[in-house]
Amino acid sequence: MATEMESALIFLGTGSSGSVPSMSCLIEPSDPPCSVCTQSLSLPPQSNPNYRCNTSLLIKYYSQTDATQKYILIDAGKTFRESVLRWFVFHRIPRVDSILLTHDHADAILGLDDIRAVQPFSPTNDIDPTPVYLTQRSMERMETVFPYLVKKKQKEGQEIRRVAQFCWNIVAEDCNQPFFASGLKLIPLPVMHGEDYICLGFLFGNKDRVAYLSDVSRIPASTEYVISKNGAGQ
Amino acid sequence: MATEMESALIFLGTGSSGSVPSMSCLIEPSDPPCSVCTQSLSLPPQSNPNYRCNTSLLIKYYSQTDATQKYILIDAGKTFRESVLRWFVFHRIPRVDSILLTHDHADAILGLDDIRAVQPFSPTNDIDPTPVYLTQRSMERMETVFPYLVKKKQKEGQEIRRVAQFCWNIVAEDCNQPFFASGLKLIPLPVMHGEDYICLGFLFGNKDRVAYLSDVSRIPASTEYVISKNGAGQ
Repeated sequence: MATEMESALIFLGTGSSGSVPSMSCLIEPSDPPCSVCTQSLSLPPQSNPNYRCNTSLLIKYYSQTDATQKYILIDAGKTFRESVLRWFVFHRIPRVDSILLTHDHADAILGLDDIRAVQPFSPTNDIDPTPVYLTQRSMERMETVFPYLVKKKQKEGQEIRRVAQFCWNIVAEDCNQPFFASGLKLIPLPVMHGEDYICLGFLFGNKDRVAYLSDVSRIPASTEYVISKNGAGQ
Repeated sequence: MATEMESALIFLGTGSSGSVPSMSCLIEPSDPPCSVCTQSLSLPPQSNPNYRCNTSLLIKYYSQTDATQKYILIDAGKTFRESVLRWFVFHRIPRVDSILLTHDHADAILGLDDIRAVQPFSPTNDIDPTPVYLTQRSMERMETVFPYLVKKKQKEGQEIRRVAQFCWNIVAEDCNQPFFASGLKLIPLPVMHGEDYICLGFLFGNKDRVAYLSDVSRIPASTEYVISKNGAGQ
């Protein structure tokens, strides 16, 4: 468990888009049955390497400069709720301060409907918006998938609904345009997720340099150069 | 557990939109802590009344006329995967034959991305489409949330992706326009979900009449009349 007043990386999920166990592997088992999926339901999740949710990372960032503890979430996919029940409770994570999205696929974004649960509660919805950092392409997808999370103003007479409030920030697909989330400097790492689609990774950390790449089929030479120049562990 | 060759109702979820336990209740507990949410993580799910996923029903329908067993799913919300891991495995449900959607909110539809896991597998995507029955309003939402599940034809040269194949069928918000799903006759039961939004319930069953209403703030008199006329248990 991560202790107070320190930085840590908490891997909320390291599974595939469909997560592990595979549903189909359990409801229509092969002969003999797959040992990984069969075993995945038999142990408590926190001690079970075979129960793996959608890929997602929580950066617990302690800034010594101003002695504040921040929680930065990368991606909130289909299994976001399970990740919170499992790892937020176990590591005593009280909230999320900012969110980075790597891309706009279901395994990275569909959990955003539940994000209100990790924001401060307000029955009248006047909570501080949570900053989200994402590409222009992901932003356009947000507007169609979650119009009620993007639309800022309510129509006159419209019922107040308690949904999450976000502050959307566009990130360039460019290693040379770093940005800050909750005080942490991040360098975008554009990588290929299929040859027709760019997914973002992120390079961060002052003492230890970390390159986080969650969904990638090929790393372009320009991105690889930035990673190696910064001496980051992947 | 439901046995072979019989009809049965399997409640995949009976929880709220945010499900039970509440994430916020566990990560920022009240003093004293909520006993329901605290207890919900301490027992195996199948023997735990306090672990409740998004509202969803599986109708196991055995037709004596043609001696076939069919599986009809009502709604696939944010916790669809958990419901499959928990109840499909426990009740040995091998697949879903058809799907009914009550409305287009996240707690009823966001799990559809995972539906491929309960369809027959085909690496080339030439699986039989699963019939889905939904209102025109829900259909329009499907087109924006899941364009890759709605679009039928691939562009020339486009990569084949293994996603679910659906056959979409529009259902009228009208008790007088019944339809059939996997051989079972269903009467749509339009009810109010807030005063500006119609959600569908369904009335079905030959021997025992069942009225299933999953998300409702008010039952219009015309719908109430149809339910009482049919002597259905709710």
